[in-house]
Amino acid sequence: MGEERFDADVYAGRLERAAGLAREAGLDAVFVAPGPDLQYLTGSRASTFERLTVLVVPAEGPLALVVPRMELAAIRTSAVGELPIEVREWVDGDDPYALALAGLGAGIRTAVSETMPALHLVPLAAAAGSAPELATPVLRRLRMVKDAAEIAALRRAGDAIDRVHARVGEWLRPGRTEREVAADIARAIVEEGHTAADFVIVGSGPNGADPHHEVSDRVVQTGETVVVDIGGPVEPGYFSDSTRTYVIGAAPASVADAYDVLERAQQAAFDAVRPGASAESVDAAARSVLAEAGLADRFIHRTGHGIGLSVHEEPYIVAGETIALEPGMAFSIEPGIYFPGEWGARIEDIVVVTEHGGERLNTRPHGLVEL
Amino acid sequence: MGEERFDADVYAGRLERAAGLAREAGLDAVFVAPGPDLQYLTGSRASTFERLTVLVVPAEGPLALVVPRMELAAIRTSAVGELPIEVREWVDGDDPYALALAGLGAGIRTAVSETMPALHLVPLAAAAGSAPELATPVLRRLRMVKDAAEIAALRRAGDAIDRVHARVGEWLRPGRTEREVAADIARAIVEEGHTAADFVIVGSGPNGADPHHEVSDRVVQTGETVVVDIGGPVEPGYFSDSTRTYVIGAAPASVADAYDVLERAQQAAFDAVRPGASAESVDAAARSVLAEAGLADRFIHRTGHGIGLSVHEEPYIVAGETIALEPGMAFSIEPGIYFPGEWGARIEDIVVVTEHGGERLNTRPHGLVEL
Repeated sequence: MGEERFDADVYAGRLERAAGLAREAGLDAVFVAPGPDLQYLTGSRASTFERLTVLVVPAEGPLALVVPRMELAAIRTSAVGELPIEVREWVDGDDPYALALAGLGAGIRTAVSETMPALHLVPLAAAAGSAPELATPVLRRLRMVKDAAEIAALRRAGDAIDRVHARVGEWLRPGRTEREVAADIARAIVEEGHTAADFVIVGSGPNGADPHHEVSDRVVQTGETVVVDIGGPVEPGYFSDSTRTYVIGAAPASVADAYDVLERAQQAAFDAVRPGASAESVDAAARSVLAEAGLADRFIHRTGHGIGLSVHEEPYIVAGETIALEPGMAFSIEPGIYFPGEWGARIEDIVVVTEHGGERLNTRPHGLVEL
Repeated sequence: MGEERFDADVYAGRLERAAGLAREAGLDAVFVAPGPDLQYLTGSRASTFERLTVLVVPAEGPLALVVPRMELAAIRTSAVGELPIEVREWVDGDDPYALALAGLGAGIRTAVSETMPALHLVPLAAAAGSAPELATPVLRRLRMVKDAAEIAALRRAGDAIDRVHARVGEWLRPGRTEREVAADIARAIVEEGHTAADFVIVGSGPNGADPHHEVSDRVVQTGETVVVDIGGPVEPGYFSDSTRTYVIGAAPASVADAYDVLERAQQAAFDAVRPGASAESVDAAARSVLAEAGLADRFIHRTGHGIGLSVHEEPYIVAGETIALEPGMAFSIEPGIYFPGEWGARIEDIVVVTEHGGERLNTRPHGLVEL
């Protein structure tokens, strides 16, 4: 329920750039639904679903926010009141889609933010007489490259989650269930400065081989690896996300050997980060280290994802993503190896692209943490 | 984090009816994204966003679930494994939209559930070569009319929230802030049988005049009205939602007089409920009582909303909604009166349509509750 935001002039600048990028892309207007894009552009954390709330960013002309009258209170904590945005309120019975399109003319080319649900996109498209595109190519240009205040927030988030990882030994002990351990970690995530624990994965033994396992009532055993992947938001809404792999006692040699390769793969991906390198080249760097060791098939997901107001956002560090890295981009580097029915491991840091390479925002040691 | 669901045959029947309704509507396939529709049809509480998970319900032919491999674990608690649904798993780099459309042929007419985000709807439409419609007209036919097990769940939810309202006097006292009162109520919502407190509105004095006010640090004063609108889900996922208006001490005569009209308006709406009556006639019944007393302008929202796996769903009790009520439909009746800067009041019950009229699932007294 955090309500912090940046100063209004930060949002004014972002809105100006959004309109400029819309113009460059040949769009007449971009419609931004509640979600991280709206938060990025106005500071609003509105989360309406069934009644249309939408920010209209025209290529030319004044900005408008269409909002149900009963939701006006919810935008008071945003910067909308301090920005040159015409608020078009509506009540049940009005046509909010006509309000969104007012003044834009006919035969226009439009785009919508990723979170707009079909419930609103379908009638908006019908009212506009044309199918909107995704605004992602426009908005990701903005959100992908973080400014200094955003990087500072991500750094606070990284420090906070590092402090939690430093304390995992307090709770991760043989004989306790994953769920018990996760509950303690969740409390620590808040204690260390997050506004909430957004996700807590504790994957012990074979559960570590499922990259999306969350928690279970499985009891952690001596000699097992345990994947701990945790994160949450810090004000004003920027996320942490970091994974370390723990071992209760000492790891068997086969585990230690494969883990060494994983550690080198994570380092190789990090070393590939620099302005101008493609996102997919970072993915390829991790993958080739694992492939050389015969572990290519054990790495069954992408290497990383952008992070900011969303836990997962552009740029994605994955084969096929040719976008060139720029200073200020922030994303995870998190290769993993998974042996179904046996064990798994993952190492994840958030990395910011700098002028000459990358900087890790998570600085806990990478080795298997022996508890 | 509840994981209860109905037996698989319940979902099998719903899926069969969904395919039948798609055929009747002339659709070739319906695509159901994570959300209450997917939960209704399969028991799945999947909540993926950026990676496509979608249930394909063709008018003819076998059902399919497109799901990211890393999300397979999340569907294990659903009925999917016990149903004739082909699971089409995919990994990063695959084209999930092609998987969703596989076997459906070209030039098809499709529909999507309300919750599908633009992120997936836009590329799905591009891959299909045509713009999907909203599946709401198909799916609402199913979800609007509750079966006996669903009504039993809504009844449990209603009883649970009534028990909370019965205890509000324990916490709502002059000198306490709305936020303090709301925290106690939220705890009681869980204590009385909900899996979570989904919303807690405590609107004291002038805050009661904003129908979407949630809570604030305002201190409750003697002599004030306080709107308490609360609810949450009970297993397997059905919601409660009930509002009562309290007064600290005795109400001034002007408040009591207007409140009497509101009470009659709520009763008139309830009395209008019967099979065959239109949804908008229920709204009109409440509105005309208020209009006769000169309070038409004080009632600034619709009279109600359907309820089930969503807090707000079809049918909406609002002008323009001509759908005929049927036995098994469940919705709120919640007229309110709002005097900006002064006070507000609302009375809300969940009502189920029976063979001969309506039945309230909330049975706490309607009068201003003097504390």
